[in-house]
Amino acid sequence: MHNMEYRFADRVKALRPSAIREIFKYAADPEVISLSAGNPAPEAFPVKELEALSAEVFQTQPLDALLYSVTEGLPALRDDVRRLLKQHCGIDTPGDDVLITSGAEQVMSLLGKSLLEVGDTVVCEEPSFVGALNSFRAYGAVLKGVPMEKDGLDVNALETILKTDPRVKFLYTIPNFQNPTGITTSWEKRRQIYALAKKYDVLILEDNPYGDLRFAGADVPAIKTLDDDGHVLYAGTFSKTIAPGMRVGYAAGGAALLQKMTVCKQGEDVHTNIWSQLVIHKFLETYDYETHLKNLQAIYRKKYAVACKALQDFAPALSYLPTEGGLFLWCTLPDTIPMTDFCTAAVRDKKVCVVPGNAFLTDDTAPSRSFRINYSTPTDADLTRGIELLGELLRDWPNA
Amino acid sequence: MHNMEYRFADRVKALRPSAIREIFKYAADPEVISLSAGNPAPEAFPVKELEALSAEVFQTQPLDALLYSVTEGLPALRDDVRRLLKQHCGIDTPGDDVLITSGAEQVMSLLGKSLLEVGDTVVCEEPSFVGALNSFRAYGAVLKGVPMEKDGLDVNALETILKTDPRVKFLYTIPNFQNPTGITTSWEKRRQIYALAKKYDVLILEDNPYGDLRFAGADVPAIKTLDDDGHVLYAGTFSKTIAPGMRVGYAAGGAALLQKMTVCKQGEDVHTNIWSQLVIHKFLETYDYETHLKNLQAIYRKKYAVACKALQDFAPALSYLPTEGGLFLWCTLPDTIPMTDFCTAAVRDKKVCVVPGNAFLTDDTAPSRSFRINYSTPTDADLTRGIELLGELLRDWPNA
Repeated sequence: MHNMEYRFADRVKALRPSAIREIFKYAADPEVISLSAGNPAPEAFPVKELEALSAEVFQTQPLDALLYSVTEGLPALRDDVRRLLKQHCGIDTPGDDVLITSGAEQVMSLLGKSLLEVGDTVVCEEPSFVGALNSFRAYGAVLKGVPMEKDGLDVNALETILKTDPRVKFLYTIPNFQNPTGITTSWEKRRQIYALAKKYDVLILEDNPYGDLRFAGADVPAIKTLDDDGHVLYAGTFSKTIAPGMRVGYAAGGAALLQKMTVCKQGEDVHTNIWSQLVIHKFLETYDYETHLKNLQAIYRKKYAVACKALQDFAPALSYLPTEGGLFLWCTLPDTIPMTDFCTAAVRDKKVCVVPGNAFLTDDTAPSRSFRINYSTPTDADLTRGIELLGELLRDWPNA
Repeated sequence: MHNMEYRFADRVKALRPSAIREIFKYAADPEVISLSAGNPAPEAFPVKELEALSAEVFQTQPLDALLYSVTEGLPALRDDVRRLLKQHCGIDTPGDDVLITSGAEQVMSLLGKSLLEVGDTVVCEEPSFVGALNSFRAYGAVLKGVPMEKDGLDVNALETILKTDPRVKFLYTIPNFQNPTGITTSWEKRRQIYALAKKYDVLILEDNPYGDLRFAGADVPAIKTLDDDGHVLYAGTFSKTIAPGMRVGYAAGGAALLQKMTVCKQGEDVHTNIWSQLVIHKFLETYDYETHLKNLQAIYRKKYAVACKALQDFAPALSYLPTEGGLFLWCTLPDTIPMTDFCTAAVRDKKVCVVPGNAFLTDDTAPSRSFRINYSTPTDADLTRGIELLGELLRDWPNA
């Protein structure tokens, strides 16, 4: 039996599943050590607290959790987000509004839906988070990458694009513990980036999923703190700090932009799961969130140290970028070892799964010598053993 | 302080919030009797059962409810949907697949994203569900309405559009207890509609949110039962039968189409809230769903009777279309009373909120003499009193 030939929109014809999502399928094999996921550490979930709060919601306000709700999000949770943005990031832009989304991925999607005509340009860091890039691709964006330096993107390369391309709608940046590189953009560069956005009148999408997971060094203020007229849309999430399966994120930005995104969200999922919103609101209200975050930071500090020690002990030929927070380490192979072959051999022969670096490029057929390791999800033993196996593969690589 | 001027995509410039969502704001006034919502009856929610199952999920598999999951949806829930589609609707198309979505609204959105170029045509019933129409508008669809007759859309008018417009990508239809008219499409017309879709090679989006809420008459098989090559995408939901706040719907259709929609969903919300999926799966596995549906049908049968009696007793000048299921009654005013003025006076002077009929038109500035009443959500007393107040307004209308 043959299906009809579907006439897909040109925008989406070339869209493929994210390589990371596809790698999840390998990672489901219980024999495989997965260093490829982006889940928080299992011990980081406040399971007992969420269980108690969920039961409380059902006992005290079940219909609030079960009926339709408003698209903007639970008012009490929007207030929580405003408060946290002010306390944690110093963000308190007059005229700004807050929208609760079904994970921060939906912020990317709604911004794309609101702004992008087919052929418009989105500037992004190179490499960058493939989930966001795919969101923009679905609206026909032309992606232009700006190379990453150790203190953030190459500002001169950014200006060259902004100066020559009138179709740039926004810049996508992850200033803290960037995915996949772990790089944090310096305060000096944040100021430069904001000034360029104003000069060329483009929006900045500042994605900060990992900012609360800093385990070393000092906070750098958000680009959003510089914003006085809605040039920055800030995206945050509870996926890394409470639980990703609950799918609760948020956007903060200019009211006119958020109103358009809200209408677009109405046509996507009407509103975010309301049980999740209520339970997260109650978590923030009931428990000491700062202590919870300190506990998470301690978990990740330790896991990061385990990963670094294993890399030094077992895989000295692999170079990696040190980081001060987040979930990921960006590793680079010696020139003599082809990255794709190495990652394939790792999962096939050693049953260790990492994410090939080309998955994070605007052109994922371009060459890359890097791959991404996740240190948050595996146990300490698996993390050490996985890196040891990668080291063996490196050491035994023919002609390396 | 002025915000920057956002350069919205042309597609979304004219998008406005759905009139129904906006009316929710009036309906939040506790003095207002809302006959405008689309929520199930409060007594229809299986609160105790969901509470127990949610607690069980937290006790037995908390991390399954909290971690990232796969975009396609919980495998066990996809199996449940396949089984229900076969048992309830006789749907068992070879080569078809199932995707779990964040409410059925996301099916509309993902189909639009997958197929629509700006300027493509979507054919719909006139009037139709405004939420779906707005989903299509966000992708630049040109909406062409086909007038409704008492046994479904005007098939000749449909063929005229299909014959003359090569840009039609799909037909959107709600064959059971259509929103807003309550009309059920006859079997004869379903066959004609399917034959036309095949003849002109366009897709049918068959939206069936209310099919399980039939309280009178005999089931009419789904259009999807006729499908042998993926010309029908079927959308269903647990919003009316379990709980809308949980935001769980599904699509069943050709595998190539669902694969594209899955990639698009990955870029929107990664996956549907996994707690919701687990709790709904356990509900279907633990309780007798057929008995649950029979209880719901009994509730709606009674509420429909209350509404009809009140309309006959208190508002005989109002004509309405009888229905055999669903949540809505479509009422039409005498020629002498302007509908928009009537609906405005109803909420302002009588504190009764209904949805003006023009909200459901492809051109919502076109004239309408009708409005939609919801009988599922109000108490019997509010339903009667609300209709009595509408009757008073009618009776006292100047020069009516």
